[in-house]
Amino acid sequence: MNQEFNNMKEEYLEQQLRQKINSKTKPIGALGYLENIALQVGCIQQTLSPVITNPHVIVFAGDHGVAQTELVNPYPQAVTAQMVLNFLEGGAAINVFCRQHQIALKIVDAGVNQQWSEAIQHEDFIQAKIAYGTSNYIDHPAMSEAEAKKAIEEGKKIVKQVGLQGCNTIGFGEMGISNTSSASLIMSILLQLPIKECTGRGTGASDSQLEIKKYVLQKVIDKHELNNFIDQPIKLLSIIGGFEIAMMVGAYLQAAENKMVIVVDGFIATAALLVAHQINKNVLQFCIFAHASEEQGHQKMLHYLQAKPLLTLGLRLGEGTGAALAIPLIQSAVAFLNQMASFESAGVSTKM
Amino acid sequence: MNQEFNNMKEEYLEQQLRQKINSKTKPIGALGYLENIALQVGCIQQTLSPVITNPHVIVFAGDHGVAQTELVNPYPQAVTAQMVLNFLEGGAAINVFCRQHQIALKIVDAGVNQQWSEAIQHEDFIQAKIAYGTSNYIDHPAMSEAEAKKAIEEGKKIVKQVGLQGCNTIGFGEMGISNTSSASLIMSILLQLPIKECTGRGTGASDSQLEIKKYVLQKVIDKHELNNFIDQPIKLLSIIGGFEIAMMVGAYLQAAENKMVIVVDGFIATAALLVAHQINKNVLQFCIFAHASEEQGHQKMLHYLQAKPLLTLGLRLGEGTGAALAIPLIQSAVAFLNQMASFESAGVSTKM
Repeated sequence: MNQEFNNMKEEYLEQQLRQKINSKTKPIGALGYLENIALQVGCIQQTLSPVITNPHVIVFAGDHGVAQTELVNPYPQAVTAQMVLNFLEGGAAINVFCRQHQIALKIVDAGVNQQWSEAIQHEDFIQAKIAYGTSNYIDHPAMSEAEAKKAIEEGKKIVKQVGLQGCNTIGFGEMGISNTSSASLIMSILLQLPIKECTGRGTGASDSQLEIKKYVLQKVIDKHELNNFIDQPIKLLSIIGGFEIAMMVGAYLQAAENKMVIVVDGFIATAALLVAHQINKNVLQFCIFAHASEEQGHQKMLHYLQAKPLLTLGLRLGEGTGAALAIPLIQSAVAFLNQMASFESAGVSTKM
Repeated sequence: MNQEFNNMKEEYLEQQLRQKINSKTKPIGALGYLENIALQVGCIQQTLSPVITNPHVIVFAGDHGVAQTELVNPYPQAVTAQMVLNFLEGGAAINVFCRQHQIALKIVDAGVNQQWSEAIQHEDFIQAKIAYGTSNYIDHPAMSEAEAKKAIEEGKKIVKQVGLQGCNTIGFGEMGISNTSSASLIMSILLQLPIKECTGRGTGASDSQLEIKKYVLQKVIDKHELNNFIDQPIKLLSIIGGFEIAMMVGAYLQAAENKMVIVVDGFIATAALLVAHQINKNVLQFCIFAHASEEQGHQKMLHYLQAKPLLTLGLRLGEGTGAALAIPLIQSAVAFLNQMASFESAGVSTKM
């Protein structure tokens, strides 16, 4: 009875939102996909006049044991920690885009293989290290199930904290050398697609590196019999995940719990979303997809999630850069809904 | 000799810009299309550190005699003037997006069929009316060649003025009931494509209205023997153009003369660009394409111009809305070029 009443209320709100959108001084549908976004944000916030407050991008960083396996990735593992320092110095792409759009940025050490000097005290740095990088899943599970659960809990905690600061719109980014391999494995299992359809060049693998990557990842699937874990997403995550991915899973779950607008970045962020979605299907209704990346397989994940991203700019950087670039478009959608005149108020004639 | 020196100088600058882009803390090419934009803006401004200053959107409004022909457009002609007032009140979509991104907005009466009350004194309103709408080109040429030239000159003057205010990045929008018909005709002649491949629904024509539109426009092509005027773009413009389109042509020419970054909006703005391009091929190098519209034919124009737009959001509104939404992405491209750390400065390892 209560559920029925809620459904009616939601249908009514949706209808009211559509009416409001259609009353604006523009032909019906002329703002295209921005109209869908306005509708979605209105539904998420349960209001005809949604607002975007204190938007955040949270970048989760973690190291992957598999990076030690030669040729899976062209960059050395040390780059993860070096990039964390670059984030804290403000010199990475995500810093630039967040500054441009007044998006708050937090950097999380989810499991970087680096002992930070005590000098690193930065208000935007959250130390939530689960361990000094994962184990190499070519030999052993990347982490214990307990660690995976702890990472998920940490992710939830961080989003809860950000929520308390009035943030209602959030994007998640990641930094972790070799984490495209984890993402490909997650995708292959949860979407039941052959690994070769889920494997891309990451941040710049050559042809031969790509072939080796596919070969190695198939070995991983076979060794750990990953296909047994489709319905045990946390177990799957523990075997081939990264700490940053696991933390991001928790972050998605909490953001949905908080009814935040969730801005989904590229390939790895979407792979983490697949896991969160497997845990709780409700997450999707809060998601706006920022960017279709160049990574092979991202298109297939988006198709599976019936997602239509706002941007297609050929980005393949991660860090949440797609999310940061898409947030202004979400703000545009909300702004037209709140600020545009109606045909009536502006005295503009409608169709003949 | 001088030309050769200039070419060498430009090649050297381009090479330096590529090096600067590739030195940033990201895999080569990982910022995708934003890297192309950064390169282009650097080349336009002839510097390794370009800046976007005082960006503007100029909306040209004009009425079309053909709007009196029933069923070519579902909105009455009066909407052009009503929307001009809506722009001045700040209630249209373009107002909302320009406010959001601190883009200056000017509204130009290029030829609206409306006598304004003297009360209309607005700092952002430029009265450059050539006439009270064009003649209906079903019977007569839309305007005289002298009027077309005058409109082009007015467009140049307006951009020159805006340039004096320090604007180096400019987008052009339009408002004019029935102006998609003009745009389709221009496209059909300059691209030598059958009118049916150039005709879309404008702002919401029905199936039968669309069929009538195609039929009427083919009649116009035959009656005025438009195919004789491929190499006389101003003559062509005078027969089937609108004052807002002609003024926009002049605006493009002047913006290129001023070496501004030109942000090209949707279907009608691109049709006007075709005319400017026919007059001076150099215009293109200054153009960044904002948006691929839903109008049938826009894809073909973009293909002809070898253009790859930044956004594909299903907009079909005009007003310069695509340009306004794309300017932040151009600013992002410039910002990463200027603000991101290099591998060297940030102490980040490059590829193994």
